[in-house]
Amino acid sequence: MTGTLTIAGLGPGSEAMITPEVSAALASATDILGYAPYVARVAPRDGLILHPSDNREEIGRATDALRLASEGRNVVVVSSGDPGVFAMASAVFEALEASPQWHDLSIRVLPGITAMLAAAARIGAPLGHDFCAINLSDNLKPWAVIERRLRLAAEADFSVAIYNPRSVSRPDGFARALEILGEAGPSDRLVIFARAISTAHERIETVSLRHARPEMADMKTLVIVCNSATRQVGRWIYAPRHAG
Amino acid sequence: MTGTLTIAGLGPGSEAMITPEVSAALASATDILGYAPYVARVAPRDGLILHPSDNREEIGRATDALRLASEGRNVVVVSSGDPGVFAMASAVFEALEASPQWHDLSIRVLPGITAMLAAAARIGAPLGHDFCAINLSDNLKPWAVIERRLRLAAEADFSVAIYNPRSVSRPDGFARALEILGEAGPSDRLVIFARAISTAHERIETVSLRHARPEMADMKTLVIVCNSATRQVGRWIYAPRHAG
Repeated sequence: MTGTLTIAGLGPGSEAMITPEVSAALASATDILGYAPYVARVAPRDGLILHPSDNREEIGRATDALRLASEGRNVVVVSSGDPGVFAMASAVFEALEASPQWHDLSIRVLPGITAMLAAAARIGAPLGHDFCAINLSDNLKPWAVIERRLRLAAEADFSVAIYNPRSVSRPDGFARALEILGEAGPSDRLVIFARAISTAHERIETVSLRHARPEMADMKTLVIVCNSATRQVGRWIYAPRHAG
Repeated sequence: MTGTLTIAGLGPGSEAMITPEVSAALASATDILGYAPYVARVAPRDGLILHPSDNREEIGRATDALRLASEGRNVVVVSSGDPGVFAMASAVFEALEASPQWHDLSIRVLPGITAMLAAAARIGAPLGHDFCAINLSDNLKPWAVIERRLRLAAEADFSVAIYNPRSVSRPDGFARALEILGEAGPSDRLVIFARAISTAHERIETVSLRHARPEMADMKTLVIVCNSATRQVGRWIYAPRHAG
């Protein structure tokens, strides 16, 4: 009996943004694993076992998924957005590296619409020029690395998409990040706070960097600090294709 | 009569990666505009007018799209990948800014699976940690800006997704880009050349930066220069979630 492991991206929230290949993988799965709020997005049905788990349990979840696939199950690990962007795909390959007995398993990764693309589309095209994506969580990397990257990103005049800007356990990092970006680049750049895009709780607001306040973001917010050339036209915001 | 303008991402090539909202927009369109190879991906049908155009005609195409929408048509501008990543969305908002008479048009942007996400998924999770995306075309920005960004990106140890690495009219920039990345960071980093992902012509190969050759890329290639912590496990490549 041969099992499979699929690591799939559910997109930002709307069913209309789930790719057909991901829908097909969910339809033929025997087991769905993931952070509980993402597993809750998959409709229950006969023959499908849902395995919701808590946040910060990524490696345990990944190992469980590999084991189930090795036992012949058709396993789907779900992430919000894209599984390869600050989500479950890296955790699965970390777990795979630690488990040589599973190296021959049939694995595939199915991309999804990651939060920054959904947010950018709602407001125009703020990622239409060179940009970077930085995870502000320092659970797994030193804060000094994050500060350094923010500074270099501002010096490069990248638009900066910030994932996981702020949580209850990390209330202060985002305030520091805004400070650094303001020191290392112009403070009149636009900052977009995009929360729960494509869901019923969607909210999007834009202010200049000097008026950005940390409490405008929470863990469901994707923040885009625009590059210096970014422009507003009516309700839209876009990064021109030229440099400045 | 009220027209609409939708700027939609077709994903990297496979129908299975086109989101349902994009498929629905194509199904209700009266006019499709875009670069000819992308328009060719839309099936002809009665009542649908296809307007293929040449590369480098983005602003003219965007203006045509706005005019058609203002005349009451349901217009879809198609891009490969995501329309907001080095594609048509910025051009449409540039054209809109120049045409105040159209500022009240009904416009929406529908995201798609951009090339770097599709390429990353095929090979594992090389964008699982902080990363940036740089367009190597210097048609619209000075080459010095590109060099500076590449250098700062390497100093930050971002994984770097390179769009439009090389074309007939720009044969030399990519060679220089590889040099800069090798000077500004370790030369044993992995480089992924992902061509025409999810199409019948898909090809993907990985070498170390010191063995990367410019001719491994063309305009259909998305290149990912991995960060220094990136690892191989079997046929997979992934950026660990921790920093190094």
